[in-house]
Amino acid sequence: MKLPGQEDFEHSSAHENVLAEELDSGLGPGPCLGGPSDTDNGASGVSKDPLLFIQLNELLGWPQALEWRETGRWVLFEEKLEVGAGRWSAPHVPTLALPSLQNLRSLLSEGIVLLDCQAQSLLELVEQVISGESLSPELRGQLQALLLQRPQHHIQTAGIRPCRGPNAFRNASFDEDHPLKQQNPLKQKLPPGAEAAAVLAGELGFLAQPLGAFVRLRNPVVLEPLTEVILPSRFFCLLLGPPTLGRSYHEMGRAAAVLLSDPQFQWSVRRANNLHDLLAALDAFLQEVTTLPPGRWDRTARIPPPKCLPSQHKRLRSELQKVTDLSRGRATQAGDMHHHGQHAPSPELQRTGRLFGGLVQDVRRKACWYPSDFLDALHPQCFSAVLYIYLATVTNAITFGGLLGDATEGAQGVLESFLGTAVAGAAFCLMAGQPLTILSSTGPVLVFERLLFSFSRDHSLDYLPFRLWVGIWVATFCLVLVATEASLLVRYFTRFTEEGFCALISLIFIYDAVGKMLNLIRAYPIQRQGSPAQGCFCQYPGPGGNASEWTSTKHKDTDVSSVHLGLVNASLLSPSECIRQGGYPRGPSCHTVPDIAFFSLLLFFTSFLCAMALKHVRNSRLFPSVVRKVFSDFSSVLAILLGCGLDAFLGLATPKLLVPTEFKPTLPGRGWLVSPFGANPWWLSVAAALPALLLSILIFMDQQITAVILNRAEYRLQKGAGFHLDLFCVAVLMLLTSALGLPWYVSATVISLAHMDSLRRESRACVPGEAPHFLGISSDSRQGAFAREQRLTGLVVFILTGVSIFLAPVLKFIPMPVLYGIFLYMGVAALSSIQFMKRVQLLLMPTKHQPDMLLLRHVPLSRVHLFTAIQLACLGLLWIIKSTPAAIIFPLMLLGLVGVRKALEWVFSPLELLWLDELTPEEEKNIPESGLEPEHSFSRDGNEDSELMYQPKTPEINISVN
Amino acid sequence: MKLPGQEDFEHSSAHENVLAEELDSGLGPGPCLGGPSDTDNGASGVSKDPLLFIQLNELLGWPQALEWRETGRWVLFEEKLEVGAGRWSAPHVPTLALPSLQNLRSLLSEGIVLLDCQAQSLLELVEQVISGESLSPELRGQLQALLLQRPQHHIQTAGIRPCRGPNAFRNASFDEDHPLKQQNPLKQKLPPGAEAAAVLAGELGFLAQPLGAFVRLRNPVVLEPLTEVILPSRFFCLLLGPPTLGRSYHEMGRAAAVLLSDPQFQWSVRRANNLHDLLAALDAFLQEVTTLPPGRWDRTARIPPPKCLPSQHKRLRSELQKVTDLSRGRATQAGDMHHHGQHAPSPELQRTGRLFGGLVQDVRRKACWYPSDFLDALHPQCFSAVLYIYLATVTNAITFGGLLGDATEGAQGVLESFLGTAVAGAAFCLMAGQPLTILSSTGPVLVFERLLFSFSRDHSLDYLPFRLWVGIWVATFCLVLVATEASLLVRYFTRFTEEGFCALISLIFIYDAVGKMLNLIRAYPIQRQGSPAQGCFCQYPGPGGNASEWTSTKHKDTDVSSVHLGLVNASLLSPSECIRQGGYPRGPSCHTVPDIAFFSLLLFFTSFLCAMALKHVRNSRLFPSVVRKVFSDFSSVLAILLGCGLDAFLGLATPKLLVPTEFKPTLPGRGWLVSPFGANPWWLSVAAALPALLLSILIFMDQQITAVILNRAEYRLQKGAGFHLDLFCVAVLMLLTSALGLPWYVSATVISLAHMDSLRRESRACVPGEAPHFLGISSDSRQGAFAREQRLTGLVVFILTGVSIFLAPVLKFIPMPVLYGIFLYMGVAALSSIQFMKRVQLLLMPTKHQPDMLLLRHVPLSRVHLFTAIQLACLGLLWIIKSTPAAIIFPLMLLGLVGVRKALEWVFSPLELLWLDELTPEEEKNIPESGLEPEHSFSRDGNEDSELMYQPKTPEINISVN
Repeated sequence: MKLPGQEDFEHSSAHENVLAEELDSGLGPGPCLGGPSDTDNGASGVSKDPLLFIQLNELLGWPQALEWRETGRWVLFEEKLEVGAGRWSAPHVPTLALPSLQNLRSLLSEGIVLLDCQAQSLLELVEQVISGESLSPELRGQLQALLLQRPQHHIQTAGIRPCRGPNAFRNASFDEDHPLKQQNPLKQKLPPGAEAAAVLAGELGFLAQPLGAFVRLRNPVVLEPLTEVILPSRFFCLLLGPPTLGRSYHEMGRAAAVLLSDPQFQWSVRRANNLHDLLAALDAFLQEVTTLPPGRWDRTARIPPPKCLPSQHKRLRSELQKVTDLSRGRATQAGDMHHHGQHAPSPELQRTGRLFGGLVQDVRRKACWYPSDFLDALHPQCFSAVLYIYLATVTNAITFGGLLGDATEGAQGVLESFLGTAVAGAAFCLMAGQPLTILSSTGPVLVFERLLFSFSRDHSLDYLPFRLWVGIWVATFCLVLVATEASLLVRYFTRFTEEGFCALISLIFIYDAVGKMLNLIRAYPIQRQGSPAQGCFCQYPGPGGNASEWTSTKHKDTDVSSVHLGLVNASLLSPSECIRQGGYPRGPSCHTVPDIAFFSLLLFFTSFLCAMALKHVRNSRLFPSVVRKVFSDFSSVLAILLGCGLDAFLGLATPKLLVPTEFKPTLPGRGWLVSPFGANPWWLSVAAALPALLLSILIFMDQQITAVILNRAEYRLQKGAGFHLDLFCVAVLMLLTSALGLPWYVSATVISLAHMDSLRRESRACVPGEAPHFLGISSDSRQGAFAREQRLTGLVVFILTGVSIFLAPVLKFIPMPVLYGIFLYMGVAALSSIQFMKRVQLLLMPTKHQPDMLLLRHVPLSRVHLFTAIQLACLGLLWIIKSTPAAIIFPLMLLGLVGVRKALEWVFSPLELLWLDELTPEEEKNIPESGLEPEHSFSRDGNEDSELMYQPKTPEINISVN
Repeated sequence: MKLPGQEDFEHSSAHENVLAEELDSGLGPGPCLGGPSDTDNGASGVSKDPLLFIQLNELLGWPQALEWRETGRWVLFEEKLEVGAGRWSAPHVPTLALPSLQNLRSLLSEGIVLLDCQAQSLLELVEQVISGESLSPELRGQLQALLLQRPQHHIQTAGIRPCRGPNAFRNASFDEDHPLKQQNPLKQKLPPGAEAAAVLAGELGFLAQPLGAFVRLRNPVVLEPLTEVILPSRFFCLLLGPPTLGRSYHEMGRAAAVLLSDPQFQWSVRRANNLHDLLAALDAFLQEVTTLPPGRWDRTARIPPPKCLPSQHKRLRSELQKVTDLSRGRATQAGDMHHHGQHAPSPELQRTGRLFGGLVQDVRRKACWYPSDFLDALHPQCFSAVLYIYLATVTNAITFGGLLGDATEGAQGVLESFLGTAVAGAAFCLMAGQPLTILSSTGPVLVFERLLFSFSRDHSLDYLPFRLWVGIWVATFCLVLVATEASLLVRYFTRFTEEGFCALISLIFIYDAVGKMLNLIRAYPIQRQGSPAQGCFCQYPGPGGNASEWTSTKHKDTDVSSVHLGLVNASLLSPSECIRQGGYPRGPSCHTVPDIAFFSLLLFFTSFLCAMALKHVRNSRLFPSVVRKVFSDFSSVLAILLGCGLDAFLGLATPKLLVPTEFKPTLPGRGWLVSPFGANPWWLSVAAALPALLLSILIFMDQQITAVILNRAEYRLQKGAGFHLDLFCVAVLMLLTSALGLPWYVSATVISLAHMDSLRRESRACVPGEAPHFLGISSDSRQGAFAREQRLTGLVVFILTGVSIFLAPVLKFIPMPVLYGIFLYMGVAALSSIQFMKRVQLLLMPTKHQPDMLLLRHVPLSRVHLFTAIQLACLGLLWIIKSTPAAIIFPLMLLGLVGVRKALEWVFSPLELLWLDELTPEEEKNIPESGLEPEHSFSRDGNEDSELMYQPKTPEINISVN
């Protein structure tokens, strides 16, 4: 290996002989979340280097009272001791001055480097280090005593409150008498097998020469008092010297610690054979540092940890490329850009070419896992998952039940919703291909059901029998789709389609929520001033009055004179009481209920705003994360409870949720089984095929988009997907629910993802500065974070939901305006979650205020606006269709979005579509050949986009309660 | 001057001979906003270096179609051409790789350096550069032709929309035919006198050797096609070479541009005499760069511009210190920490020691400016300021007038508010020491007036005469305060006092707003279900009924049987119509007005939320900044208008603002002059001295805190303050308003600051990435941003307010709940603006989520909590006093806060108080001697706090409408 001198700033070749495979598995922590390359390799986990905890102990108090004090620590990021405040700073990206790195380099190059030191204790280590120095014996003794001195650690404990004054942190320091009593909380955050490194730096007046030492221990040893966390130490670095200007040893110590915290340097230094390798690693580090100009960045500013760390693979690749090859092909780059925008299709989405071939494969694949699907549930974590998903499911059942009752005028209701959720959900959990999917009422199906009901009402059809036939046909069509392996077409549903789908449903939700509130206000009119007649009293048939006389005047009650009644036998009883006592309530005010309209409006806004606010509590700084999670996860439950409480407190006669008094269907006079014909003509059972075709499209899209999202590679499910089997189950349950007059169900995206997330095996706590792993992000390569795939949690959730039917009498206290508020919240939340809305905002945003979105770096703004405008136009068209009597064909138009997307290929280049949308399978084939040319010629060094910009793809369709 | 080699990484001495004064005035743009050192020196503005616009032209298209293209530009920050999107990136902090800087250094050290080149055109320049190279004649010709080729600029124009495809940006490029038609918008953002620098970089196949040249022109010349902005160029840098790996010439070009954009490098290179100076400047730059480790920071991540730039003075100081002195005293550091926490007292706050000495000095100082106080107003900017402040003043007059009418039960009202505002405001503008101050009703005085009224009502006093005597006494006390120069005591009002003051008033506002709404709901009760009797009808005296019979039953209307009336002669007319026709409205529902309670609640929340939301529009990304400013500045006006519109639309009988129908006092039966005794006993005129003492304290605190804030050094007012004169005017106006029964007035902080800000002379537009200058921040050292200090705008505003009295009939359409909503908004906005609330939030925040506040770096958390707890306790005590009958003494208790603050010195160290609060004059004297010891020993290199943390101090008291 060549020795690069300090002057040699040309590309270092230190890593030429590095094996790519070794790096793949060994390059430590912190790749970009969700990056596919990490996902692929991270799970293998062979021969990983352990995580390193680095501590800087500084020698302070020269000359009076020398002592070592811990002043900084590093795992991924730097934490600095705030001396005055006696606390650790927030973790931040370490910044160094260049001279400190260069000083460190020269100190090390002249100092002692012991690689594979055999010392078994701190004493041995210190002796070995000092023996290498040419010191006088007395100096040697002094130095040894000093190095063995116990350092002051700063351990943050929750219990101890330091007392007055800036010296307070001493009280919280390491307590020599009870080293075992105080468990360092940091220790629990480090993964098992973590090692420590100690950097000792400081200025020592009696030294004439700087003293530098770098030790790698062959076998890591606990060097007891050195580090605050009791871990075996692998590295030991000593940097002492005579007093200098400006804390340069402090800065050198920091530089050494930062170097050790760099994964690539750490990798190299673990494998270094001599001083030259060490210096080469340092030089390689120097080659790669990012520098910020002093006039534009203050070094003391603390940069918070980035959302995702630079990928070590990228560093390796660029290293290797520089060394080996100038004229590399474009394919690599294309692949680079590609994997970010795109998710690879599941292997389950391969065509077999046989009828029901996909279904058979699904069943075969899942059958062998069946016993483990129950045994894997034996873990306490499943218990908390059940509780969480149960609450979400019940809220969903109540809300959608209420809305369904509203939409179908009581043909179905909340009781059917509970029963259906329980039956269909449990059956699906037992049979489905992907048992983590939670079957639920979803927005699109609800919208269709509403339209179907209006259609049947307008044509005076008997709804439930008609609906039964629709269900039968849908099941048939779905079976055809299963047989023909149509689920493979799901790859043509790009973000463009998903966004159109989601935006339309969201808008319908918002429109309906507001419309229902307006209807409610119309039903409880507001009494304005100035109407001449507004009284109410109770009249009894008697000598003075005459009922027929009243009746005659009633018709012309716009006429003021008609309000004069002459002599009546009257009382002031309330209308209901009046009727009970045989009188007639008289007057225009008798049938208006005051205050209800505005109170309903207040309830509506309260529940909407409360749900929105609680959802955002997650991002608040206040409260511990557990509390925030509860508030955020149960925002709609809490909003409903608040609304009910408010309503109960005031006791007004707001319209309430309709619940049957006993366990029978909401529609009076029907049994649980729907009769196949009812009052409908026989040919309607054939004609039902037409709406069924539309519903099939809708169900297929809704179900499969969810299934694809849930089975994405980044969630690393072990037992495989079952797209065909899932659709088959949905079809069978369609039959069942139609026959019983229960709501229709498909997989709900958000609630299924929440289910999976709550079952994810506990990954170890994050080290300081590491981003917490949110829903669906699990590329933690240090430790697998697989979900416990089993069928039991879902089953128990739905059994509990079934049991909850007996809670139905309580539900009648829920005011409808509260549910409408939640309805509005669902629409607004879903709408604001899609990228489309961000692009719509761009239309209103001055160029200089636009956020640094990746697509804006690559696509001209006018093209982005054009794409958004096309989406808006499609949405407008869909809305117009939805507002005509032909509204029911909207699923066909949704499917039409796929066609529009295909046509967009004529307007946009594949590269633009790659950034604005995703690519369809054909486009993907085209892009490496043609797409990259124009941009490529400008950026020879490849993509200058930061990896920080690549965010994991989030689901676009998320209309459900939680 | 020493020549530091590339290897020499010890501290460079390149700046040793730099004169501090020269740097002070010459160190270019962007010091920390509000930093006192900048404020002091920036205004002098002698011999400044001009701002530099730097453009990177890159040679692209080798070997087929060579062309120069602009790919980056710099003023303060870097803007990169997004090739695919055809737009400039957002400005960001440039990041460089270390090798690019080192490559640049070696290229320059071997290349041509022409300092003080005399070239008059690009041709001459190119010839001079090429002649220095040892090239073959034909190569020379090729190179010359290439260098003279017109580069492709990317000029962002609003009008032109590029068409389809990634090559679209070509269309928006520089149009050769119409170079004058398209005015580059960037040009308008650069200050006059700006110069350009062109960096040309690229790879050229026919070159065998790298070719580097750096030219400084003696006289800047417009090198026409080189830069997109037509500016005289000062620097020219050429970096060409044979093709290499990884775009290294692009990176070198960026490095050269970043170097030139660094103020310190620029300063050095403008004064460099030879190559050595140039390289020394580069090495000095290298010494100071901030480096980020490659494993923790992705170089391609774009760092947005920091809120404030590193101070060049600090860089200079640290440079000089390193070189000259090891054992520097602690005083410097103490001073450092000090000037951040503290603002220097105005020179006007020096004691004269004579009776009325301060007043005399104030009058003398202001008298000489008096003519210019009117002549300076002759500027169109004053017109827009008048419009803006007029709207704010009128909103204030309406809101406070409405509240005053409420609080004094009509003894004063909105008409008095208009008249008083006009009279007092205009008089103050004519006489006051600081004519930019706007006199207005403020929260504290309103609260006191409310308490005074309750007191006089409880003791059956005649309010206005009593109030007149209070006013007389207050004027007397204020005169005493003026005579004794008591305004100097204002320095004892630290943030602790101000926060207590503001928090109490805010809480009273919030409490009162909610309380008033509850009263309103009580006045319009909600009709609940279940009350047996609830009718209403109109009964005429007639044969069937009997009025006395009704009267007897009315008393026992809880008894259900009493509602039976027997035979009555009835009609259904509304109660008012009924009475008009000679009948009697009968029944419990006759006197309840339905829907008003909830509608009022809706109006209340709507106006509150609307005002809050509009206030936050300023921070939105949507809409151009003008629109956002209008929404934000007029949030309360818009909220009131929205409320009125909503109310008018529904036409309900909500309670409205009480306005007299003609121009006379709101209280019926009084003239404009208040009689001095009325129904009160004579001794009350003496007893009024007691409440007057309290009010004097309040007025003194309110007035002086505002005055100190407005006259702070960072606003750089030219004509001096007049604390004593201001207080004198307030005292005189106190007499006047009391005699006329008008509201009392003092200076209002927020509206006065807004006034000053709207009069600030237009500073040039910000260059890309520069933070816009918000209210009260004017440390732009390049260009003075002084306010136009004059008396005319204020005068016109108040004359207009006086004229607006004739608008009074319109005001009666304003519903009171809307004003209560604005009231609540004022309380909440004021409360959330104080640092105290941030510390209260810390109590609820887990340690790891706490923001990186400066005080948390220096003071232990428990001490911070203790300080907050003491403040909370004080506030609780104040609240308890406020809730007792002794409420009226609350100003005394506010003054007591000063005492508590003094007592805190026994609990906290001066250093802690420095971070938690400010220091009183005595403490300031103490701190350099003793305070810094403990922390000092840990940070020898001085303070490691970033300058970014130092925020300009904002006013704590801001209870007024806008």
